[in-house]
Amino acid sequence: GVAMIDRHRELRQGAPEVVFGEGKSGEQLLTIVGRMAEHGGNILVTRLAADKAGPLLERHPGAAYDRDARALTLVQKPVAKCGIGKILVVCAGTSDIPVAREASLTARILGNEVDELVDVGVAGIHRLLARADLLQEAAVIIVVAGMEGALPSVVGGLVSVPVIAVPTSIGYGAAFGGVAALLGMLNSCAAGVTVVNIDNGFGAAFAAHRINTRREP
Amino acid sequence: GVAMIDRHRELRQGAPEVVFGEGKSGEQLLTIVGRMAEHGGNILVTRLAADKAGPLLERHPGAAYDRDARALTLVQKPVAKCGIGKILVVCAGTSDIPVAREASLTARILGNEVDELVDVGVAGIHRLLARADLLQEAAVIIVVAGMEGALPSVVGGLVSVPVIAVPTSIGYGAAFGGVAALLGMLNSCAAGVTVVNIDNGFGAAFAAHRINTRREP
Amino acid sequence: GVAMIDRHRELRQGAPEVVFGEGKSGEQLLTIVGRMAEHGGNILVTRLAADKAGPLLERHPGAAYDRDARALTLVQKPVAKCGIGKILVVCAGTSDIPVAREASLTARILGNEVDELVDVGVAGIHRLLARADLLQEAAVIIVVAGMEGALPSVVGGLVSVPVIAVPTSIGYGAAFGGVAALLGMLNSCAAGVTVVNIDNGFGAAFAAHRINTRREP
Amino acid sequence: GVAMIDRHRELRQGAPEVVFGEGKSGEQLLTIVGRMAEHGGNILVTRLAADKAGPLLERHPGAAYDRDARALTLVQKPVAKCGIGKILVVCAGTSDIPVAREASLTARILGNEVDELVDVGVAGIHRLLARADLLQEAAVIIVVAGMEGALPSVVGGLVSVPVIAVPTSIGYGAAFGGVAALLGMLNSCAAGVTVVNIDNGFGAAFAAHRINTRREP
Amino acid sequence: GVAMIDRHRELRQGAPEVVFGEGKSGEQLLTIVGRMAEHGGNILVTRLAADKAGPLLERHPGAAYDRDARALTLVQKPVAKCGIGKILVVCAGTSDIPVAREASLTARILGNEVDELVDVGVAGIHRLLARADLLQEAAVIIVVAGMEGALPSVVGGLVSVPVIAVPTSIGYGAAFGGVAALLGMLNSCAAGVTVVNIDNGFGAAFAAHRINTRREP
Amino acid sequence: GVAMIDRHRELRQGAPEVVFGEGKSGEQLLTIVGRMAEHGGNILVTRLAADKAGPLLERHPGAAYDRDARALTLVQKPVAKCGIGKILVVCAGTSDIPVAREASLTARILGNEVDELVDVGVAGIHRLLARADLLQEAAVIIVVAGMEGALPSVVGGLVSVPVIAVPTSIGYGAAFGGVAALLGMLNSCAAGVTVVNIDNGFGAAFAAHRINTRREP
Amino acid sequence: GVAMIDRHRELRQGAPEVVFGEGKSGEQLLTIVGRMAEHGGNILVTRLAADKAGPLLERHPGAAYDRDARALTLVQKPVAKCGIGKILVVCAGTSDIPVAREASLTARILGNEVDELVDVGVAGIHRLLARADLLQEAAVIIVVAGMEGALPSVVGGLVSVPVIAVPTSIGYGAAFGGVAALLGMLNSCAAGVTVVNIDNGFGAAFAAHRINTRREP
Amino acid sequence: GVAMIDRHRELRQGAPEVVFGEGKSGEQLLTIVGRMAEHGGNILVTRLAADKAGPLLERHPGAAYDRDARALTLVQKPVAKCGIGKILVVCAGTSDIPVAREASLTARILGNEVDELVDVGVAGIHRLLARADLLQEAAVIIVVAGMEGALPSVVGGLVSVPVIAVPTSIGYGAAFGGVAALLGMLNSCAAGVTVVNIDNGFGAAFAAHRINTRREP
Ligand SMILES: Nc1ncnc2c1ncn2[C@@H]1O[C@H](COP(=O)(O)O)[C@@H](O)[C@H]1O
Ligand SMILES: Nc1ncnc2c1ncn2[C@@H]1O[C@H](COP(=O)(O)O)[C@@H](O)[C@H]1O
Ligand SMILES: Nc1ncnc2c1ncn2[C@@H]1O[C@H](COP(=O)(O)O)[C@@H](O)[C@H]1O
Ligand SMILES: Nc1ncnc2c1ncn2[C@@H]1O[C@H](COP(=O)(O)O)[C@@H](O)[C@H]1O
Ligand SMILES: [Mg+2]
Ligand SMILES: [Mg+2]
Ligand SMILES: [Mg+2]
Ligand SMILES: [Mg+2]
Ligand SMILES: [Mg+2]
Ligand SMILES: [Mg+2]
Ligand SMILES: [Mg+2]
Ligand SMILES: [Mg+2]
Repeated sequence: GVAMIDRHRELRQGAPEVVFGEGKSGEQLLTIVGRMAEHGGNILVTRLAADKAGPLLERHPGAAYDRDARALTLVQKPVAKCGIGKILVVCAGTSDIPVAREASLTARILGNEVDELVDVGVAGIHRLLARADLLQEAAVIIVVAGMEGALPSVVGGLVSVPVIAVPTSIGYGAAFGGVAALLGMLNSCAAGVTVVNIDNGFGAAFAAHRINTRREP
Repeated sequence: GVAMIDRHRELRQGAPEVVFGEGKSGEQLLTIVGRMAEHGGNILVTRLAADKAGPLLERHPGAAYDRDARALTLVQKPVAKCGIGKILVVCAGTSDIPVAREASLTARILGNEVDELVDVGVAGIHRLLARADLLQEAAVIIVVAGMEGALPSVVGGLVSVPVIAVPTSIGYGAAFGGVAALLGMLNSCAAGVTVVNIDNGFGAAFAAHRINTRREP
Repeated sequence: GVAMIDRHRELRQGAPEVVFGEGKSGEQLLTIVGRMAEHGGNILVTRLAADKAGPLLERHPGAAYDRDARALTLVQKPVAKCGIGKILVVCAGTSDIPVAREASLTARILGNEVDELVDVGVAGIHRLLARADLLQEAAVIIVVAGMEGALPSVVGGLVSVPVIAVPTSIGYGAAFGGVAALLGMLNSCAAGVTVVNIDNGFGAAFAAHRINTRREP
Repeated sequence: GVAMIDRHRELRQGAPEVVFGEGKSGEQLLTIVGRMAEHGGNILVTRLAADKAGPLLERHPGAAYDRDARALTLVQKPVAKCGIGKILVVCAGTSDIPVAREASLTARILGNEVDELVDVGVAGIHRLLARADLLQEAAVIIVVAGMEGALPSVVGGLVSVPVIAVPTSIGYGAAFGGVAALLGMLNSCAAGVTVVNIDNGFGAAFAAHRINTRREP
Repeated sequence: GVAMIDRHRELRQGAPEVVFGEGKSGEQLLTIVGRMAEHGGNILVTRLAADKAGPLLERHPGAAYDRDARALTLVQKPVAKCGIGKILVVCAGTSDIPVAREASLTARILGNEVDELVDVGVAGIHRLLARADLLQEAAVIIVVAGMEGALPSVVGGLVSVPVIAVPTSIGYGAAFGGVAALLGMLNSCAAGVTVVNIDNGFGAAFAAHRINTRREP
Repeated sequence: GVAMIDRHRELRQGAPEVVFGEGKSGEQLLTIVGRMAEHGGNILVTRLAADKAGPLLERHPGAAYDRDARALTLVQKPVAKCGIGKILVVCAGTSDIPVAREASLTARILGNEVDELVDVGVAGIHRLLARADLLQEAAVIIVVAGMEGALPSVVGGLVSVPVIAVPTSIGYGAAFGGVAALLGMLNSCAAGVTVVNIDNGFGAAFAAHRINTRREP
Repeated sequence: GVAMIDRHRELRQGAPEVVFGEGKSGEQLLTIVGRMAEHGGNILVTRLAADKAGPLLERHPGAAYDRDARALTLVQKPVAKCGIGKILVVCAGTSDIPVAREASLTARILGNEVDELVDVGVAGIHRLLARADLLQEAAVIIVVAGMEGALPSVVGGLVSVPVIAVPTSIGYGAAFGGVAALLGMLNSCAAGVTVVNIDNGFGAAFAAHRINTRREP
Repeated sequence: GVAMIDRHRELRQGAPEVVFGEGKSGEQLLTIVGRMAEHGGNILVTRLAADKAGPLLERHPGAAYDRDARALTLVQKPVAKCGIGKILVVCAGTSDIPVAREASLTARILGNEVDELVDVGVAGIHRLLARADLLQEAAVIIVVAGMEGALPSVVGGLVSVPVIAVPTSIGYGAAFGGVAALLGMLNSCAAGVTVVNIDNGFGAAFAAHRINTRREP
């Protein structure tokens, strides 16, 4: 098990501690973040409601809260640049921006360079085709979409790099809180598209980071 | 109720009697089709297994069975041409052809002119864009797709005519027998796309026929 | 792609820009609607909560908010009449009125003439039969129903014009937020009834508009 | 507990022993039916495949097998007539006949007088309205329907007697093996319609029998 | 259709007008109830939140609101006694009381005599067995249960009169808002138990009323 | 990790190797069982179709196949008796016998003493109450039931020993292959009833064995 | 039935009365707990919101409320120690603590000795392996986990004592309120793991108590 | 679009044409494969039943059929080695081998070096830990698991390279044909694990190939 532990540690070098903010009380968050901050590393709190961010920002003046991403970051030491290319975060509609932003922010605090391409849903396919240049430049692409979740299939057919699909809970009725998009992505007819949980911008970014920092063994 | 009945009859002028072939015994089918044939009208039997078609073809030499569409037709009097334009049936993959064929065949026996465009799934979007001419010519478009069911959203964004989406049961695992495609289509981000039941090529064609024969009141 | 773009533009002539109001902040809505209003066109904001409508009405004195439809409209230039007939919006119960109203309002701002027929659910079938005249006059019929969603089957059997079914989330328990009605409509035994998402009065109206403005190619 | 047992016995006076035929081997069925037959009472085996009926018919020459109902009956002593009125079994389509037949057959062997009304689905509502006389004569009505399962709502609105709805597994795609019909019936907008399991003609008949034989305490 | 209408009217003699209170605004409720009250008949408003009952009680001093049943009644003329026996409402746990109460109240305003038996869930089976007398006296039994919904099977096995099962949304986790209880009841191994929608005490009472007032034709 | 491995081995002393027979080819089974048999221990193959058992029985003359349990056992050395009491396997209907038998057989080959109580479903509650003696004698009770799965709640309320509930896939329609029974058991109102997977008699027996052989640490 | 009742009473000796706090009004709770307290026994109220605990604490100064477990206890007489070993409550993440705490608290008030092991989720498997000592000491293990619910499989493979799995509703998106964890646990590849309802720490503790107090008959 | 097409072609250099074998007739397969073979490239047919492979093997003597993977390959020109490291395919149980084999075979024909690690399910965690060396050597890891699908969480916590999870349909009852495993993987508590469709070994391999051949832009 020694090798494993070593490698695991290596992976985490300069990487932030991550706290899952949802369902923790303000008090619990203050304790956890406080204790972590003492180690001098960077911290990322995801799925954090705005009203719970307040006390944390007060206690940690160096922290920042991103309303869109609903995430708090505390950068105590410089983030080491990593990655052999850019991560591109594409999103279908303006309503998907929060999830896309969680992905961008996570990818950046992990050390990656990130680009964003917004509002290029498949019902206006020319909008995506017009930005083929951005797609071609990316080393990894994260595609965020709600409703029918069709965008990853189109993107997956246009590029040869890894594509990670993130379904969002945007929509109503038979969208079933993101299930329609999730199923669409799992059944993508573009070969080799992989999928993460509904609204899981964090997970998609972490997967992209695993890919972007992959070393030759 | 008199007016209704009249109009209903008018609708059916020259239109075939339709039999739902699934789950009926060979004997029942012979009786039903036999009785209908005596009235001299045209007959369409849908969802008919090949082995059950045999005895019907023997009894009714004028009948024809389409293996792809799994439908039997018996045309006893000329089908009156109707419709103010062409109905275009588009399908995503070659596995969707049976459902597309059921739609074409139904639309034709109802008197409509029909075109087909096959294998233009969204993972190779250029295949669809290359046939923009066909899309532009159509009066109504039926879009048949399984797996993630994304094609109707793209088509719906490219044209202004009515678009009817048909999910198919093609796929496996989380395709759930067409549910993934159905949900995708119900949540289409292209405004004004309507949907029919999984594998219901017949229903889509009938809806297209309602649209194509629509009169000014 | 040139032809497509042209046609697309043609479709939108005089048509409103549509904003999906749900899940956008008041601030975002002010920005988006403000920017759109500068182009001088008409605007429709759907699924807009009453409390978010306030600031928009203040900023845009010409705008109007329909509480039932939960929609805001800003008409800056006359809506060009279109359509070869009337769109009839039928609804099963008084609780379905909001969705029916969203449909009427959308169809009207797209330029169509619209009639409404309310509270004609199938448990009192004579109420519907008594208004056969209205059904016979319509060029397209939108049928809105919650609970078991049976009304479109009855209407679809009475008329030969296109019928678009809209399930609503009205009901409780095994209504599952509109799923019971949605499934009922997808399995309608009336041939050629098409369906849109739960509570999607907007989509039904847009589909009816596609049908009602359909040109001979 | 004595009273209970007594009443229970009383209920069963002359009533058949019922065997659930599905999933029992031919051998098991021969043993069970053989043992029961020795008591000299009547026997009903439901959900019995045709190939398993053969050996039972050979062993028990007095038995009869109904292919539609998929039920075997062995009447060894006269069925005592009971019931204060007729039970009417209504069914929507010809494909629903097997379930309707299971209901009729069960109701009859329990001693009730039974009428049938077939192929009166809601997409051709005049067919039902034309037989209002039959509806008016019934003491209890069983309504059997697949697909969208809308018929019980219409019937329930037309009569004041008890209405028992039986969803059938007829349909495909989003019919989900009878779930669409089941949900439709559970959400019926006609007050006081009750429901049994999918394809459970037996249960509906037994419930109708409970109602039809109800005594003043 | 004349006969039907007559019978329908007959059914409603002295019966209350029923309003579905959920999802209607206070204003709408005042209008609807006000208009109905003018006809001098009785009124029942179900699924009415306490805060919406206030203004109605003020406007109609003769009205009464039952907090448990969440129902408002306005009795303007004496309820005609009907029914050939008592309706017994049995419920499994104290948390099921609201639904049981909705049933009792509805059955009473329809003219029936009603008994209640509370807190006799199957995990303490002796509690039910101890009250066999009450079960034996009833003409119709309504059984209300949440969680696993097992009580109707036990009751259905103890009596020969009609049993109507009402699943409630009581429970958490895999109770799925009453779905577990609903499925349990639909699959009851007691023959001839019928089922209504989750929490639908009103519907169960109406069905019991149909049974209890059933005439010989 | 040493302790764990030790204890794990200790657990398996004299216990059979278990093979999951489903979905393995005849050839694979011969190889796997052959290799295991060489170690001289006992072997249990569960979920084994009868036609696949044949070649195994030929190759291993000491093996036995139980058609009901669909399990093959090869006992090469005496099963060491264990357990501080009897395991009682109770089942609701005769159709549940196969799952009950899989449980009994598994419990026995693990060294436990086992009793069976069959056909005591809740719709005839006296049948269970009549055998209170058996319930009282057991150290652990496994309750097997399909359809509404109510039996474990009743048993759990009658005894203080551990109760393990096994839902079976017996039933049709809304039984959903055992889901109705599974949900019923998970929501049991009897405190402290635990549940295993649908049809998992093996798992229930193994859990009972863990309980019955539990040592004071 | 006498024997049963006796044993049942015996089981409850010194055991608390348990109240399901959810969905009861403050008033109802005061009445129920008040009446129970008069008998001098111990009381446990589960699933009790903090704001409803207040009045109960005021009325009963001896009561205590555990915010994590959301449970109120009133110990009026000493809890008799029971159990032949320790119950260990293991939980995967810090967010699962409330459910774990409900289990511990319940097990303790039933008289058992309890240990806790927190934050040993499978994504950092060394954390669990490092505490093998605790696992080895336990007589019964309760494993609480949300998200993918994998922990019980790992624990079940490491020990031979009974393992009870409790899925929690922790997670989002495709966690479906605990369904993902529940399914994972029901399908555990570790033989003989049993499962209780989502978030049901109480039930798991009660089951562990049944096991831990099991007597030789 | 030119750049895209180029890159797309570049991706496919030496890569096989892929045919989805399921649901195609023997005749269709002969035509499709025949036409493709003429171009001299390599061909992969997935999800191909053994009986349909026969005629293809006869016609194309150079083809090979892998019974486990249910895939046919026709290698007409040498597969160009690619990839910056090895792809490791890990699988939980022997029943998962077919899906694992589909992944290996696909990855190999795309030019990657592949290792396999079989039967290391989480219920015997030491089996996985004992092969940490293999995990450390891999550039990308594909983890295949059915039932509760827990293995990817454990692997994801042990390594920093990309992990792609493949749920399989292995299991019964509440495994729901792979849904339990799919949900488990989507909710993995190991950050950055991505998921493909149930049984989609092909897709996982293609995604691993995208990662392994990723170039610096
Ligand atoms: N948004 C998120 N979605 C899924 N997992 C997350 C998310 N944020 C944090 N996590 C995971 O949760 C862990 C922290 O959980 P906790 O100890 O409960 O704060 C991290 O190590 C991450 O792997
Ligand atoms: N109520 C609605 N239901 C479904 N789609 C809608 C609705 N309202 C607007 N849309 C679609 O959403 C698009 C605008 O989305 P957005 O850019 O997010 O405001 C419009 O072009 C419509 O196609
Ligand atoms: N078609 C059916 N649907 C539901 N329950 C049935 C059916 N047929 C028989 N039963 C019930 O199953 C019991 C007999 O079951 P068994 O002892 O397994 O043959 C009868 O007493 C009936 O209550
Ligand atoms: N009927 C069954 N249900 C659930 N798990 C089983 C069953 N039979 C065997 N198993 C488990 O499957 C393992 C063997 O799987 P395998 O190596 O695929 O044969 C055994 O160790 C058991 O834990
Ligand atoms: Mg947009
Ligand atoms: Mg293709
Ligand atoms: Mg009304
Ligand atoms: Mg018919
Ligand atoms: Mg109670
Ligand atoms: Mg029986
Ligand atoms: Mg943690
Ligand atoms: Mg194994």
